[in-house]
Amino acid sequence: MQTIRQDIQVAFRYDVHFVEDAFHPENDLLARIVEAEAGVPWRKMLPVIDEGLLPHYPDLPERIEAYFAQRAHSLALHAPVLAAAGEAAKNDPALVAGLHAAIRQAGLCRHSFVLAIGGGSVLDLAGYAAATAHRGVRLVRMPTTVLAQNDSGVGVKNSVNARGAKNFLGTFAPPYAVVNDFSFLASLSDRDWRSGMAEAVKVALVKDAAFFDELEANAERLAPPRRDARAIERLVYRCAALHLDHIAASGDPFEMGTSRPLDFGHWAAHQLEQLTGYALRHGEAVATGIALDATYSRLGGLLPERDWRRTLALLEAMGFRLYAPEIGAHLDEPEHPRSVFRGLEAFREHLGGTLTIMLLAGIGQGMEVHEVDLGLYRRAIALLRERAARAARAACTEPAAARIS
Amino acid sequence: MQTIRQDIQVAFRYDVHFVEDAFHPENDLLARIVEAEAGVPWRKMLPVIDEGLLPHYPDLPERIEAYFAQRAHSLALHAPVLAAAGEAAKNDPALVAGLHAAIRQAGLCRHSFVLAIGGGSVLDLAGYAAATAHRGVRLVRMPTTVLAQNDSGVGVKNSVNARGAKNFLGTFAPPYAVVNDFSFLASLSDRDWRSGMAEAVKVALVKDAAFFDELEANAERLAPPRRDARAIERLVYRCAALHLDHIAASGDPFEMGTSRPLDFGHWAAHQLEQLTGYALRHGEAVATGIALDATYSRLGGLLPERDWRRTLALLEAMGFRLYAPEIGAHLDEPEHPRSVFRGLEAFREHLGGTLTIMLLAGIGQGMEVHEVDLGLYRRAIALLRERAARAARAACTEPAAARIS
Repeated sequence: MQTIRQDIQVAFRYDVHFVEDAFHPENDLLARIVEAEAGVPWRKMLPVIDEGLLPHYPDLPERIEAYFAQRAHSLALHAPVLAAAGEAAKNDPALVAGLHAAIRQAGLCRHSFVLAIGGGSVLDLAGYAAATAHRGVRLVRMPTTVLAQNDSGVGVKNSVNARGAKNFLGTFAPPYAVVNDFSFLASLSDRDWRSGMAEAVKVALVKDAAFFDELEANAERLAPPRRDARAIERLVYRCAALHLDHIAASGDPFEMGTSRPLDFGHWAAHQLEQLTGYALRHGEAVATGIALDATYSRLGGLLPERDWRRTLALLEAMGFRLYAPEIGAHLDEPEHPRSVFRGLEAFREHLGGTLTIMLLAGIGQGMEVHEVDLGLYRRAIALLRERAARAARAACTEPAAARIS
Repeated sequence: MQTIRQDIQVAFRYDVHFVEDAFHPENDLLARIVEAEAGVPWRKMLPVIDEGLLPHYPDLPERIEAYFAQRAHSLALHAPVLAAAGEAAKNDPALVAGLHAAIRQAGLCRHSFVLAIGGGSVLDLAGYAAATAHRGVRLVRMPTTVLAQNDSGVGVKNSVNARGAKNFLGTFAPPYAVVNDFSFLASLSDRDWRSGMAEAVKVALVKDAAFFDELEANAERLAPPRRDARAIERLVYRCAALHLDHIAASGDPFEMGTSRPLDFGHWAAHQLEQLTGYALRHGEAVATGIALDATYSRLGGLLPERDWRRTLALLEAMGFRLYAPEIGAHLDEPEHPRSVFRGLEAFREHLGGTLTIMLLAGIGQGMEVHEVDLGLYRRAIALLRERAARAARAACTEPAAARIS
């Protein structure tokens, strides 16, 4: 027998830009990103636009057309494809097929661009279609939500839901560039604005105590109703930077191992999203998942009481509800399809049979464990339920952002 | 404006093994490949088997089952999925969906295995399905043809045909391991055996004069009817090694740039496959494509006369026909859908608008050019046509392998 050992190093580089009004005629960022390079004299570009943007920006297609018509004599811009907003973008296999058809019809090649503009779901859909056409058409992401700008939109993954499983189909495929255009954030609903902040709390809790302090100090400015633009831009930048640093420095950017620190709070969150039929936003479910795993960390003696209180208080100050009835159902039947504990099993299966869950040893200090105590989780859930009931009794008519315990 | 530059290095490692009878109960190679590792206590495996193997190896599913039943107490082996043999595997979108369904039903995770056994098309199909499920289930490839063992089966690509384009959907996804089991080669038809040798001639011409000398010295032993086992194993090993070395050393394993030295002869080959409705095997079309680009190199003054003669003589000694009527049609209408010159346009489009074609400056010396002269190509095609007609007249009843000019 003979064996050849193959070692391959693949280098990916992309810039994540933080800007205002990228389609302003005098902003040359996008033109520079897609400009012709030596050996590739002309470009093709296919925009994919989140339908949810159009009520807020009805002239967006025209602005894109005007922007590139004015500047990019070497670029053939194709008519945009509209994609369903929200999780619906990821739930319909016909949308993937439709994007593949549009990419083929436009004659895109591996040096062409898909310009995906929208929330995380539309970016995931467009990214999956772009990554699989011709083994990868270049993807320029323009995330338009807090969540996509600070988390999924700057990373290296894409996916769609299929065969009853969230993110069942997808690839690891770094984008060609990311343009975080803050001017899109103004159009977000309060729920979407708030929802995006959950991932910032998550990454601060796991990795960066100073960032947590900053979020705590700015909670009121950040949250609805104030929605301070400078504060949210700062949050987006720092959260994205931590996320990018994790990907680059983890040693495992394509997640071939079993460690997933950025999945803190996510085993319960994914299950909650499914149990609520996606009535809960991803960030809302993540906030509940964070509260649950922080409380479990506290009850297990891992997380100091003060850090636990600060964690829950910050989430509540941002206006998150930390309990949903679905999380408390079927707790004595962990195998029940509607038990939140099925989320643990899904994590275990996803990671090859060994459970790996991130918990907290302190603010800014994530800690992986491989075993959990369901009895302790039941106590943690009961504690969150009581806390929510107490808060509701005490302040049922106050605005959510004021419910600091 | 702020910008974060993201640099990611992704390291991939896989072993390519060259063995006899991998499913022999005493051969522990496969058991070692899939054995449990720290933190991942049990495994799941889904075999995908090329239907074309079953007439030759009717007991293959039972042998696989017996092999793993005996050894891998930590491995759950699922019932194999059968995949259509040959290009048909890549032409039916339902086959991709069916594999995704089987992967989901078997509960495979990113630490599970798809064991793909078959020719290059089945490996391409299974590889695409595995690479996109859960963003990548581990793929162990067992190529069973000369072509797959020395070329596509050891590389980093997968694909299926879609929307009228060959390889329109696919990803770059290094396998987890490759097991080149020589014992499968005996069942190949003479056409498939021969077809696989074209890629060896290609890589020798572009990269390794000594390998060309060796192929030349062994042409008769290699080709049908002799089909010497040791000679073909040596060809497979050296060709695979050159292919692997190119991927690892090129600096562009995922083909983000425009250079494709291993696509020598392939612009015409891809078009010929389509023009003949895949009646020509890939390797047969590649042999004709090599002959065409070698002849063009000769007529353009790039390739010395003696090297050109040796190139065509080696291909003919292996039994390849170097002309097909389809290559001579519509030469004065380069835009005609049935003109071979559409293959040049497809290459140009695939590479972002600049044509990059590999030609020969000598045996073992590839050379890229960015412009071609269609008039010279017409002369090259005419020359191949005359040569084929002369050979047919001179030796119409002799076996192909004896037609050395």
